[in-house]
Amino acid sequence: MKFCSACGATVTMRIPQGDTALRHVCDTCGEIHYQNPKLVVGAIALWGDQILLCRRAIEPRLGKWTLPAGFMENEETTAEAAARETLEEACARVEIDAPFAMVNIPRISQVHLFYRGRLLAPDFAAGDESLEVGLFDEADIPWDTLAFRSVGLTLTRFFEDRRKARFGFHSADLDITAPLAGHGT
Amino acid sequence: MKFCSACGATVTMRIPQGDTALRHVCDTCGEIHYQNPKLVVGAIALWGDQILLCRRAIEPRLGKWTLPAGFMENEETTAEAAARETLEEACARVEIDAPFAMVNIPRISQVHLFYRGRLLAPDFAAGDESLEVGLFDEADIPWDTLAFRSVGLTLTRFFEDRRKARFGFHSADLDITAPLAGHGT
Repeated sequence: MKFCSACGATVTMRIPQGDTALRHVCDTCGEIHYQNPKLVVGAIALWGDQILLCRRAIEPRLGKWTLPAGFMENEETTAEAAARETLEEACARVEIDAPFAMVNIPRISQVHLFYRGRLLAPDFAAGDESLEVGLFDEADIPWDTLAFRSVGLTLTRFFEDRRKARFGFHSADLDITAPLAGHGT
Repeated sequence: MKFCSACGATVTMRIPQGDTALRHVCDTCGEIHYQNPKLVVGAIALWGDQILLCRRAIEPRLGKWTLPAGFMENEETTAEAAARETLEEACARVEIDAPFAMVNIPRISQVHLFYRGRLLAPDFAAGDESLEVGLFDEADIPWDTLAFRSVGLTLTRFFEDRRKARFGFHSADLDITAPLAGHGT
């Protein structure tokens, strides 16, 4: 951020009076431009025992597999975001169930939130941001080519809970420099 | 937003190619300025059976009671945000336990997240944004003068779960035009 989005003047970085953090401040109009973490919301969309995965057609992690997920939009709920992303990325309609996992990634100021859900029909196709979409049994999950560690962590917890036949809500923090939270760890 | 924060030119509202929503777009430098929901994070901070509440010294809802909570900052985790807000608003140190409740308020593009936690000591005081801070038994919660419906909803679920001696994770959506989610409803 170089310019004030309210008045167009140049912004400076300083700690406003009564604050403790550096902010983009406009000394012309007085506006303080706060920046906050973004929510990325997605779904574990099931058809029977199988899970819907998308292979990414865009950066980052082009060509890698992921749960359908994306940035939450203004004026929607987290569950609506999970269903919308599943529709956009996998052309699939999902009934959203409960929140399942929340993963903090403070290094990039993101919080990833995944819901459990069920496909309304086994109908899916690659959306604009996907190269291909498929249903995967647990044994066939492409652990070594998953796009994001939050997805690996969420799938690992999901299969653990499914074996126990009891689904909880899981939260975890990821250090972007730490090794991949992989299968069974 | 009237001006591009990257180049200072005037922005226009339009749907970018390949998108489905209106965005602030800069036709000079090409930047698309996305706006996303904000996370408000807080804590149910316990000392024994009592809960820490703050009476707000700032708008909105000046003079009303709330759980310590505020906008999550970049490069912190949700649990760190809950502890930081408790320190800032109530000068109290809290050990954060598990996530307890998530409340969507799509009308204002906010997601409120509350953790359970325990005060490390019964030491607290009004921070800059509080008029007073106190510990409350369930019978003394000021239900009629709570600042936010998400706080009333969270406290209601908390006391329900405590009676059952089993804490879950709760999610709810609030319509800002709906009546207050009050005690026992």
